[in-house]
Amino acid sequence: MYELGVCYRNITRADRASADGLAALGSATVHEAMGRVGLLKPYMRPIQSGVQVSGTAVTVLLQPGDNWMMHVAAEQIQPGDIVVATVTAECTDGFFGDLLATSFQARGARGLIIDGGVRDVKELQRMGFPVWSKAISSKGTIKATLGSVNIPIVCAGMLVTPGDVIVADDDGVVCVPAAKAAATLAAAQKRESFEGEKREKLAAGVLGLDMYKMREPLAAAGLKYID
Amino acid sequence: MYELGVCYRNITRADRASADGLAALGSATVHEAMGRVGLLKPYMRPIQSGVQVSGTAVTVLLQPGDNWMMHVAAEQIQPGDIVVATVTAECTDGFFGDLLATSFQARGARGLIIDGGVRDVKELQRMGFPVWSKAISSKGTIKATLGSVNIPIVCAGMLVTPGDVIVADDDGVVCVPAAKAAATLAAAQKRESFEGEKREKLAAGVLGLDMYKMREPLAAAGLKYID
Amino acid sequence: MYELGVCYRNITRADRASADGLAALGSATVHEAMGRVGLLKPYMRPIQSGVQVSGTAVTVLLQPGDNWMMHVAAEQIQPGDIVVATVTAECTDGFFGDLLATSFQARGARGLIIDGGVRDVKELQRMGFPVWSKAISSKGTIKATLGSVNIPIVCAGMLVTPGDVIVADDDGVVCVPAAKAAATLAAAQKRESFEGEKREKLAAGVLGLDMYKMREPLAAAGLKYID
Amino acid sequence: MYELGVCYRNITRADRASADGLAALGSATVHEAMGRVGLLKPYMRPIQSGVQVSGTAVTVLLQPGDNWMMHVAAEQIQPGDIVVATVTAECTDGFFGDLLATSFQARGARGLIIDGGVRDVKELQRMGFPVWSKAISSKGTIKATLGSVNIPIVCAGMLVTPGDVIVADDDGVVCVPAAKAAATLAAAQKRESFEGEKREKLAAGVLGLDMYKMREPLAAAGLKYID
Amino acid sequence: MYELGVCYRNITRADRASADGLAALGSATVHEAMGRVGLLKPYMRPIQSGVQVSGTAVTVLLQPGDNWMMHVAAEQIQPGDIVVATVTAECTDGFFGDLLATSFQARGARGLIIDGGVRDVKELQRMGFPVWSKAISSKGTIKATLGSVNIPIVCAGMLVTPGDVIVADDDGVVCVPAAKAAATLAAAQKRESFEGEKREKLAAGVLGLDMYKMREPLAAAGLKYID
Amino acid sequence: MYELGVCYRNITRADRASADGLAALGSATVHEAMGRVGLLKPYMRPIQSGVQVSGTAVTVLLQPGDNWMMHVAAEQIQPGDIVVATVTAECTDGFFGDLLATSFQARGARGLIIDGGVRDVKELQRMGFPVWSKAISSKGTIKATLGSVNIPIVCAGMLVTPGDVIVADDDGVVCVPAAKAAATLAAAQKRESFEGEKREKLAAGVLGLDMYKMREPLAAAGLKYID
Repeated sequence: MYELGVCYRNITRADRASADGLAALGSATVHEAMGRVGLLKPYMRPIQSGVQVSGTAVTVLLQPGDNWMMHVAAEQIQPGDIVVATVTAECTDGFFGDLLATSFQARGARGLIIDGGVRDVKELQRMGFPVWSKAISSKGTIKATLGSVNIPIVCAGMLVTPGDVIVADDDGVVCVPAAKAAATLAAAQKRESFEGEKREKLAAGVLGLDMYKMREPLAAAGLKYID
Repeated sequence: MYELGVCYRNITRADRASADGLAALGSATVHEAMGRVGLLKPYMRPIQSGVQVSGTAVTVLLQPGDNWMMHVAAEQIQPGDIVVATVTAECTDGFFGDLLATSFQARGARGLIIDGGVRDVKELQRMGFPVWSKAISSKGTIKATLGSVNIPIVCAGMLVTPGDVIVADDDGVVCVPAAKAAATLAAAQKRESFEGEKREKLAAGVLGLDMYKMREPLAAAGLKYID
Repeated sequence: MYELGVCYRNITRADRASADGLAALGSATVHEAMGRVGLLKPYMRPIQSGVQVSGTAVTVLLQPGDNWMMHVAAEQIQPGDIVVATVTAECTDGFFGDLLATSFQARGARGLIIDGGVRDVKELQRMGFPVWSKAISSKGTIKATLGSVNIPIVCAGMLVTPGDVIVADDDGVVCVPAAKAAATLAAAQKRESFEGEKREKLAAGVLGLDMYKMREPLAAAGLKYID
Repeated sequence: MYELGVCYRNITRADRASADGLAALGSATVHEAMGRVGLLKPYMRPIQSGVQVSGTAVTVLLQPGDNWMMHVAAEQIQPGDIVVATVTAECTDGFFGDLLATSFQARGARGLIIDGGVRDVKELQRMGFPVWSKAISSKGTIKATLGSVNIPIVCAGMLVTPGDVIVADDDGVVCVPAAKAAATLAAAQKRESFEGEKREKLAAGVLGLDMYKMREPLAAAGLKYID
Repeated sequence: MYELGVCYRNITRADRASADGLAALGSATVHEAMGRVGLLKPYMRPIQSGVQVSGTAVTVLLQPGDNWMMHVAAEQIQPGDIVVATVTAECTDGFFGDLLATSFQARGARGLIIDGGVRDVKELQRMGFPVWSKAISSKGTIKATLGSVNIPIVCAGMLVTPGDVIVADDDGVVCVPAAKAAATLAAAQKRESFEGEKREKLAAGVLGLDMYKMREPLAAAGLKYID
Repeated sequence: MYELGVCYRNITRADRASADGLAALGSATVHEAMGRVGLLKPYMRPIQSGVQVSGTAVTVLLQPGDNWMMHVAAEQIQPGDIVVATVTAECTDGFFGDLLATSFQARGARGLIIDGGVRDVKELQRMGFPVWSKAISSKGTIKATLGSVNIPIVCAGMLVTPGDVIVADDDGVVCVPAAKAAATLAAAQKRESFEGEKREKLAAGVLGLDMYKMREPLAAAGLKYID
């Protein structure tokens, strides 16, 4: 249940080096490194292509058709943050456009994750302000009802606590709890360090069946080859 | 992010009297009494009709196509609990059927809320074991991968902490944090106490426009009547 | 484009006898009688079973999450009307419940068609107030922003003008323009008068292939039987 | 790829005793007995409640908005058949109503499975003609373009060959290849024979953890209990 | 309800200067200038990127799987028009491809808005013929059943009358009634004229909270800051 | 029904020249040439833009959340193949990423068609390995349960037999049975040979109404022009 009408000013952000370092690993590797958890639902799609970012979460709870709390959130942004917004009911309205993006960017935000709609996408792309959203919609919003800023929220099916690390790229969005950022970064880097060698072998025609030694367990599971 | 592979045995259940008392109020009134928050998404539908229950949450995190943790959860059920289950990715498989329902019912569970599929619905109706789910599906599941029991989970877009109160009826499902159960019960009862009088007036032909004194604010907002 | 902030008090309702008479024919026959047009999209489902009604449309344009205009509409209802409501953006909130239904019923309304959500469905069923909706949801609404009453609206993909005839049953909802109500009733009755004889023949084992003389056109179209 | 414009008259129906016997087992048990395959997608829902049937498939390939081939199919129905229909593109139109149902019933059909829409559902329920469909819609169809009858089709994601056994109930629809009907019946009956004992134990409070000896594999998988 | 089988040749197009001038403002600003109405549903997406157009509507009512009326519409196109097409039932077939686009472009059409599918998208992009659609699909269509041309239609939930102005860009599609085109253009230009100054302030770090003087109303609404 | 746990090593691939030649025609023309059948559902979308390929199908049946069989399939790939994968239940997990793509590409595969999710899309685009999928998702998969390789499968609603020709481009995906590849190629080439002349005429302003001689049949169908 959400606490309504509050804005928490002091949140504990994840360790900066870890938060920054996770961008290079990407959402798939980071989610694997955490044991295959933390992903937002795959309906969250980027409005741009090829961008890979990470940052610390400033959270926003919006009311349907109302983007008032986005302005309250703007003041809480610190350089290196990513704003994560959700709505109390499903809504595809355009809660965010180029003016808010200008403000967020000026405050140092690295992007927006929103379980709702955005607009001015051509201008957002031009500005280089990345957004992952459920929808694109011209529909404007009002400023009439309170939500909250910097409370734990559920965004696209995942719990996001203020200060958590968000990693987003073309594959999707993952949330890393602040307390696990450093360990996750280490695990993800280790995981990735093995990938280069594997890629070379596979490119040379070695089969995963052999490289991963799968033939025996497949046979044990009962796989039958038929000629 | 979810903690995987754990089962918490000692959870703090909401006050029993409040947890039991909320059933009579129903999901709509309870959600209003909390300030219009706490609802699971409306795709969660009952497999039966006319049932209204409340109880304390035992939570289950499942893996897609795998219902192993349901059996782990069964042992943690106490009379008056409602099991709330979610899956790490969207999945409509039939994670639950009449055998598990028999076990849950024997342990004292009052129902199941699952962001996934169920099967044996005719038998579940016959047994009087209520279920609210995203889907009905005959698809069977395996028992191979660990999830968790009694960790905080996101179910149909709402955070549910073990011990919270769940209220479910034909209108939907709402989650009341354990710490707010008593206050919410009081607020919901107060809210409901006014409804009888309102209903009588409206049935007698009094308009909401007059009963709620809306004519003036509507005019102030600019409403124009045109003949 | 919708005109906002207005309530038209004098609408031209379809001829009463036609409006009343269409209920007996049902949505499928009526839509066929009009040349296979007029249907609302099939996601509009009844909350009850076995009810078949017709009546004249009082229309309501709602804002997302706001049911203020429902109260404005209540005053415009006359016996024999069906309220048809839509929202300016997709929204599944519960705009309507048992209190509003009590008021609408007291005014003589025969039902509600809403491209949004409703709640208190158990009580609505008990009252015998039929509803066709896109969703069932406990989510409450506010009363803050103006929409309109008795303007032409688009509901579930169909244009509905105030005073048009609405026919709704378990198969769906159809809108008959007021000016075509009498002619449509006649055409639908004629259509139905042929059905009894057809049904008897088919029940006796006569094939549609023969009864409708389809064998020749099927052969002409190139149908090949293979033994 | 579908062969268009053909109607096969001689199909090999599954063994009658097996086809008839599978109804009692239900879709979930039958699909488990086949190794968890054969299910149609869960969006296929019954228009009635509590009906459990099985029969041999007569297949129909329809064109969008066109139900001409339904009449061709009617002639191919033999007592004990279930008609399985699909459309060359997604379409929710009402391809089937009470007149066709009267004809199908007169020919001995036990039901209809259609990856499309149906209408006259109240009348179909009254007649006791069961239907599983993707949608309910009043939308009428034309008779202008050829499809085919009794060719292998894909219905709701599953390949159905004429003569296969269809088992359908409140949980969904499963297709059993004709050649596997007898073996599947035996396997399903064996599977079910164990269920009574299990149910009794679970009802008596025995946990699945113990009955299925899961505690050791769960521990081996790393499950940790936390007090 | 739609009038079938007609093609209106003389429609009243919106004032040309207004129709042309609205393109520069974009769908979001134009919809705001009309009081936040007129938008088609956000499932309408462009097949290209970065195109912003406006023009006068020529409307087409299609039957499912049938694009015959597109050819009838071609003859009615005048330079500066945008074709707006809808279907009598939901259908994602590819009603439009590069041949029709060649014809439409030769007649002076600026684009197509279709509540259905299109194909040949690579070629359409190469030709510079912009399309906003519900789907992309190779599925071909037939030419067998009449719809209508230049009647009022509902497209993606919005009423479009022949001659109305359509404004479309990456954010979506908006319809401006012909009679309101000039006033809407003026209002939209005025609205946009304020944006440059706002953008500069926000880019300089001024908060929307201060620029829009929101602090007081937020406090009045009960917002609490927590340190 | 699917055969589980098998991998067929010897499949009959379509004639190579036909399989290769169909790419140039594209999915829309090929599907028309077959009589408007063979298309996968339009929710299958490319992760890249502007790629048009054809090849012979190697099929894979996956279990939800499990990509083990992808490795079994890799060994069966021959130069000129396209891998076509489906899942036994709806699942959007990322079954395929850049490592598997490296392996598939090294074996000579021309692309992947998957009724599920993929990840590493930026890298896949960089590698030039084309994919058509239902979803993009970072969600990783396990290797625990057998499916099958090179059995007939249903992918996005279409039956695909190993060795069939797959043609995929920005418009969608079509499957051509191996036995019909040569005839389809001839028919598609013939169809396309007429398009250039038509395009020139239409570009010159000739109407389809005249070029296709539609005016008479439209009048016969009852079309009325209204001035």
